Amino acid sequence: MANTDFVSVRVFSLNCWGIRHISKHCPQRYALIGHMLCKEGHDVVLLQEVWSEKDFLSLKKTLASSHPHSHYFKSGVIGSGLAIFSKHRIHDTFLYRYSLNGYPYMAHHGDWFGGKAVGMAVLNIGSLTANVYLTHLHAEYCRERDSYLPHRVVQAWELQQFIRHTSAAADVVILGGDLNMHPQDVGNRLLRTYTGLQDSYLETAKFDGCEDGFTLIADNPFISKKELGPFEKGIRIDYILFKGSSKVGIHCDFMSTTKGSVPDSPFPYSDHEALTAEFRLEALTPTQTRSDSQSKNQDSGAGGVAELVNIVTEARTEVKVGLHCAERMRYTAARTAVMGLALLLLELAIAAVPWLALGAEQPFPRTSFYLLAALCFTILLTTSLLYIFYTMELKSLQGAEDQMRLAVGSLQEKLRGFPLAQPHDPQRRPQEGQGPSALKPEE
Amino acid sequence: MANTDFVSVRVFSLNCWGIRHISKHCPQRYALIGHMLCKEGHDVVLLQEVWSEKDFLSLKKTLASSHPHSHYFKSGVIGSGLAIFSKHRIHDTFLYRYSLNGYPYMAHHGDWFGGKAVGMAVLNIGSLTANVYLTHLHAEYCRERDSYLPHRVVQAWELQQFIRHTSAAADVVILGGDLNMHPQDVGNRLLRTYTGLQDSYLETAKFDGCEDGFTLIADNPFISKKELGPFEKGIRIDYILFKGSSKVGIHCDFMSTTKGSVPDSPFPYSDHEALTAEFRLEALTPTQTRSDSQSKNQDSGAGGVAELVNIVTEARTEVKVGLHCAERMRYTAARTAVMGLALLLLELAIAAVPWLALGAEQPFPRTSFYLLAALCFTILLTTSLLYIFYTMELKSLQGAEDQMRLAVGSLQEKLRGFPLAQPHDPQRRPQEGQGPSALKPEE
Repeated sequence: MANTDFVSVRVFSLNCWGIRHISKHCPQRYALIGHMLCKEGHDVVLLQEVWSEKDFLSLKKTLASSHPHSHYFKSGVIGSGLAIFSKHRIHDTFLYRYSLNGYPYMAHHGDWFGGKAVGMAVLNIGSLTANVYLTHLHAEYCRERDSYLPHRVVQAWELQQFIRHTSAAADVVILGGDLNMHPQDVGNRLLRTYTGLQDSYLETAKFDGCEDGFTLIADNPFISKKELGPFEKGIRIDYILFKGSSKVGIHCDFMSTTKGSVPDSPFPYSDHEALTAEFRLEALTPTQTRSDSQSKNQDSGAGGVAELVNIVTEARTEVKVGLHCAERMRYTAARTAVMGLALLLLELAIAAVPWLALGAEQPFPRTSFYLLAALCFTILLTTSLLYIFYTMELKSLQGAEDQMRLAVGSLQEKLRGFPLAQPHDPQRRPQEGQGPSALKPEE
Repeated sequence: MANTDFVSVRVFSLNCWGIRHISKHCPQRYALIGHMLCKEGHDVVLLQEVWSEKDFLSLKKTLASSHPHSHYFKSGVIGSGLAIFSKHRIHDTFLYRYSLNGYPYMAHHGDWFGGKAVGMAVLNIGSLTANVYLTHLHAEYCRERDSYLPHRVVQAWELQQFIRHTSAAADVVILGGDLNMHPQDVGNRLLRTYTGLQDSYLETAKFDGCEDGFTLIADNPFISKKELGPFEKGIRIDYILFKGSSKVGIHCDFMSTTKGSVPDSPFPYSDHEALTAEFRLEALTPTQTRSDSQSKNQDSGAGGVAELVNIVTEARTEVKVGLHCAERMRYTAARTAVMGLALLLLELAIAAVPWLALGAEQPFPRTSFYLLAALCFTILLTTSLLYIFYTMELKSLQGAEDQMRLAVGSLQEKLRGFPLAQPHDPQRRPQEGQGPSALKPEE
């Protein structure tokens, strides 16, 4: 690939809202999506919430000629809902299931059953290796009192770990999906700052779509005003992120979203808006690589590292809140289990008295006796299962917190290695003001 | 690092058998292990089955001066049991929990509760980046009728995926742990062939230890003859594997195992033997890199790829057996749930008849009625939970099988790109005989 040559890559991402028999106009919308994808012929199509494998297979059939390569990631009870279609051969795939993903008893939210995960596909685009990731994080049901926030933060933490550690050999990295996080949410900042991924909405040369790049908008007929809460016009929670490498530069020339309706169609593709990003990939000459890495080094200098320390610390605080909550829940489960057991034993003791003193009358009616025993047994069983579940939740939260602490320590070590002032860049000094707080040793 | 210079790295691995109050002489053995590790001062210590965090913290205290850096990987209900101690700073850690790991109702085997996983730690050894992995796969309780084989094969598949995808930036890769697989088991061959990891026992210049490198031996007082079955003298299931990179060459100069006892001690460190490997790391000059990569290309040529295709196909067969079994189990759970529900409804109907026809006598005794109802309810609840569990097992098995099929397709594509005969290496021809079967298209 000569330097003047470039490769164009068009990436499409959509949360399909594909719950059979529940999501509105599901089969018709899949037909619309399939028709559009076939016509548009994007290089890479990243779909989320394709909950039924039948729908994936039907899409695969529709797209057989336009997108001969595909993969459906399986996880959880009904998930993961992640599907990729590609014009380019998929050489390898890998799935990372998030360690935390809601609660099985919150069946009406359904996230736990979806087995949320991040899927990776390794594609060869021309002579380049592209690592394409697609994911869907835990939904946010109530922003004010978001009990799933620690889970989502841990998911964002694991997502950045996964991308960082698996993308070293890639020339280009692309991540698409429904992150269920607003642009400035801690998980989102953590992901972008740690991985160096750039937001195609912010970086694009030209944009055509909803105001502020919203992907969940009031104008979409499937969205009720109530869902959006204080964000009357909409929110941006779906993203296409990207980065190049030391060998390949990547630029976003154009980005678009659908605008709540589809021309000549009675309804839109989904309750989420679809995203399309057009990238231009260019091989970097050794000179460009050097100047690029120099500018990167400046960016990721003391200021960048200090910012990262602060973001990880913020994320760690959320995880600690989750830890505290999980500990309380586990304690409640344990206490209830003990009470259930005590009641059961007491009942058995009361029943044993007349049984031992033969001929004595049973002190309370048989119906109540058996009903109470069944109740105690059910309580004991349920709370025991919950205790095991909360213990696993605690382990995962503790694990993430440990990793975050270690990362902060390592970043602080790095920070100590930086010169205190960089004379060639006086503007960096205010940023270094963050240094001392970030440098504070923590254990 | 000049080419004549080299860096020595000593790696230690031990399955500690650390089940508090159950494993024999647990506190005394931990004291022995701590004392020995402190004295020996290995560069990297990889421990498995450190089930209690308290034991990890006590070891951490003992090793504070000899191994200032450590990490304990948390997973599952009581696990993961994986702990790493290092002389060199640990910069980053990452944990991958295997998607399959036994069954929660097989509590006496306990693997499910251990949350088996592979942990990764990124160390800087001098100017080199070393990715150190440690893992513990599902135990093998009965080799003849091993119902956990598909789970272990999927674990080996995920382990090789994890290592392959996360180690691209590493100069050196080291994996230590209890793989619970014999050297020629399919999972072991899959792991070594796909990742290119070499077995320190097979590659070492000098070896001192048990016959055939056994790590579970009849001479260990904690091992009963029965456990070893037909392998009277012992089996080799613990490993230290390694590989270098295009920049760094790695050689195993010495490898040793304990021999079932510890001098001046009444008992050995564990029921497993401890492994120690001494590596020599050398920076490769560009010429060495070229000749090295040439010889590697020859190795991983058509013969190597064909061998890999055959191994993945063999692993896929095991996964298919697991799929068939999980489908049968799920069907049984569903059928039992339906029977439980039918019985419950029938009972309620019988009870409803006299209740509707006021004054009629209850057709059967109250005690039996309530006991039967409780039984039906328990059956319904248990089988429903099992149904959900088996569905998740199926998804994971299907997911692994899909990935294997895709990998085989990709490898076969690669195989088609090789020249049919390589005139410079006539010895390769017999190996290519595997080609046609491996090339057979499969979908």
